[in-house]
Amino acid sequence: MEFRMFDLIMKKRKGDALSKEEIDYIIEGYTKGTIPDYQMSALLMAIYFRGLSERETLDLTMAMAKSGDMMDLSAIEGIKVDKHSTGGVGDKTTLVIAPIVAACGGRIAKMSGRGLGHTGGTVDKLSSIPGFQVEIEAKEFFDIVNKTGLCVIGQSGNITPADKKIYALRDVTATIDIIPLIASSIMSKKLASGSDGILLDVKTGSGAFMKSVDESRELARQMVNIGKNAGRKVCALITNMDIPLGNAIGNSLEVIEAIKTLKCEGPKDLEEICVELSAYMLYLSQKGDIEKCRKMAIESIKNGSAFEKLCQMVEAQGGDVDYIKNPEKFEKASIAYEVKADKDGYISKIDSEKCGISSCVLGAGREKKEDEIDYSAGIILLKKTGDKVIKGETIAKLYTNNENAVSKAEGIFKDGITYSSGEPMKQKLIYDSIL
Amino acid sequence: MEFRMFDLIMKKRKGDALSKEEIDYIIEGYTKGTIPDYQMSALLMAIYFRGLSERETLDLTMAMAKSGDMMDLSAIEGIKVDKHSTGGVGDKTTLVIAPIVAACGGRIAKMSGRGLGHTGGTVDKLSSIPGFQVEIEAKEFFDIVNKTGLCVIGQSGNITPADKKIYALRDVTATIDIIPLIASSIMSKKLASGSDGILLDVKTGSGAFMKSVDESRELARQMVNIGKNAGRKVCALITNMDIPLGNAIGNSLEVIEAIKTLKCEGPKDLEEICVELSAYMLYLSQKGDIEKCRKMAIESIKNGSAFEKLCQMVEAQGGDVDYIKNPEKFEKASIAYEVKADKDGYISKIDSEKCGISSCVLGAGREKKEDEIDYSAGIILLKKTGDKVIKGETIAKLYTNNENAVSKAEGIFKDGITYSSGEPMKQKLIYDSIL
Repeated sequence: MEFRMFDLIMKKRKGDALSKEEIDYIIEGYTKGTIPDYQMSALLMAIYFRGLSERETLDLTMAMAKSGDMMDLSAIEGIKVDKHSTGGVGDKTTLVIAPIVAACGGRIAKMSGRGLGHTGGTVDKLSSIPGFQVEIEAKEFFDIVNKTGLCVIGQSGNITPADKKIYALRDVTATIDIIPLIASSIMSKKLASGSDGILLDVKTGSGAFMKSVDESRELARQMVNIGKNAGRKVCALITNMDIPLGNAIGNSLEVIEAIKTLKCEGPKDLEEICVELSAYMLYLSQKGDIEKCRKMAIESIKNGSAFEKLCQMVEAQGGDVDYIKNPEKFEKASIAYEVKADKDGYISKIDSEKCGISSCVLGAGREKKEDEIDYSAGIILLKKTGDKVIKGETIAKLYTNNENAVSKAEGIFKDGITYSSGEPMKQKLIYDSIL
Repeated sequence: MEFRMFDLIMKKRKGDALSKEEIDYIIEGYTKGTIPDYQMSALLMAIYFRGLSERETLDLTMAMAKSGDMMDLSAIEGIKVDKHSTGGVGDKTTLVIAPIVAACGGRIAKMSGRGLGHTGGTVDKLSSIPGFQVEIEAKEFFDIVNKTGLCVIGQSGNITPADKKIYALRDVTATIDIIPLIASSIMSKKLASGSDGILLDVKTGSGAFMKSVDESRELARQMVNIGKNAGRKVCALITNMDIPLGNAIGNSLEVIEAIKTLKCEGPKDLEEICVELSAYMLYLSQKGDIEKCRKMAIESIKNGSAFEKLCQMVEAQGGDVDYIKNPEKFEKASIAYEVKADKDGYISKIDSEKCGISSCVLGAGREKKEDEIDYSAGIILLKKTGDKVIKGETIAKLYTNNENAVSKAEGIFKDGITYSSGEPMKQKLIYDSIL
């Protein structure tokens, strides 16, 4: 059916709901370029003020999901589960969770993006393992998952071009922070990626999209709703983003930390959140109730089966398993600079975003798409929120091969550290779950 | 000062007021093209929802006025007065009012646009007088006003380019009907045109921007406020647009009707509104209170001095005065088609817009900028709203040189006529005035 974009902007401006046909027309026209940016941005701003109904949000999500390739994972046996995190500094959870879930009988056929924020994405982290391939043809991808239970590759093909174009426009027109638009953007990609079960890790805190737990809960609720209406199994966890996860930030540093975690030698906060996320993914894989799935996850770490799965994955994807078994083989940065505490007291806050920017300056991330990543660069936190420190004590180590970056990176990192004289309140890692 | 457009969109989205510097930055950047359409349209939509304060509206108006040439009329002695009408079918008031005001000692140095709606603009109407020049150099323009008291020319130079660009964007993004944006658009042009006094004729009714008297009053109030804050003398009349003014629609047909009106032989509604508008313009010219100015205006028609002024203006601008003194000399259209009443009863409504479209089909207006106008084409209404008619009686004559246009024009015209069995309520011509 043919509509006029002018009329559709006016309709939303008045507060009326757009029909499925109208939403399809908008998404198709905008993706093709017959609807110009200036009309789309006017509509997006009207949506900020008028909102979208659940039905409109679902229709928008489906229209965006169908704007490009829809992955067909039916060649993989069993229930395929996927995870989406709304972003976070030092978030190496996929490296820990995928082996746990596969070790417990789940199926993970995951496409992951390269990082464009301050730190590398999962694909960049995996690429720090010598020989590891992230570009794998569909047939082999399916075979690996069927054989080992897991495979993580880079995004390929033409997934949700409508979302890419709309997101880029939202980014420059002050229309990013609109819950139904965030929900439809994330869910369109997840639906197009083809898994049966989807776990959503909604980060909350100063560095995240969602500043409050209430907002995060609403975003999670809308995403779960979309997924269920689209016939998928979905649940969500609301997690804390005010604290960087684990101690390592940077590609090979995070791989090493993930290996340690799978060997029961990792930081407790990272282990706790990975167990919890794994439990929900196993629940989505119909392996039992949450309590049972949690026990399975913990057991898979204890008995070494999760670590064994990581080795299988690395081997299947061409990586050198020696590095996994002997993580000291990973190349070390030439500089390991010690950051000292400025005063006596407690660390009351570590700004995740500043950690991310600092590690990017050290070489761990890309500022532009074409930038090269230094896999060995990054930060190891020796003290975290709540820890007592003495002035002059080493609180973190900055790793880099670029000596010119150290002073700038230290300045940014220190800017993100807040001290208090009394012991700060302990923060929750997981605020809520939505089934 | 340098701002980021993203931040300014966000600021308005939140409901905060933009500073003068921020508004200057936006208007300058958008006019130059450094701010793209898609950011401007997002801002315009945020303005729809959040509004503009009076201070912001004034700053916006001044920024747009200064985006191009600002006319300097100081070479003309005395108080220069201008009139703006928010558009209307068959609005030939300038042709009547300018001579009245000049005859009573006012000064009119007017730049007028060519019509791009359904009917010709004032410049097109004047151009139907053989020899009449609308392109006159500034020096001569000033001389003519100093000598005769009036001169009406076409818009030249680069007046308010910011407004032209923003208006074109509003037109396609459903952001036209926003009172502070309408007010600033009109007032920026009037301020750039340089007159000391400005009379605003705000049309109300089905065919106009403003559908209700209350909306019109608010628009008028905002425009008067802007003008006064910019140091001009301004007043406004709220007039009825539901009834076409006078009986003639079409270029030379309207010139002939204007001549008749200046000779006390015109339609009473047209005379009444012209006297009222003239009175307010003379009031702005400090010729006395409204009552005194109204009497002067009436007297200038009765004693022939207004008609004499029209002759002087036509002569000074190179037109053939014989046509003014003997309007039967105007070339007549080859076809004069009689439209008959469809039924017995009263005419309860004549749709102004349909009259305009019909006359455009007959050749009186332009659909595209490059179209040629047929000066003799148009409509003469023989019956108007409130008149009793008998089925088959002639209610209007359609004039054209294009016989293929007649049937289409008749259909559109008849579509705009509503009949009633009882006598309809008499409508006011002038609803309100704002000093």
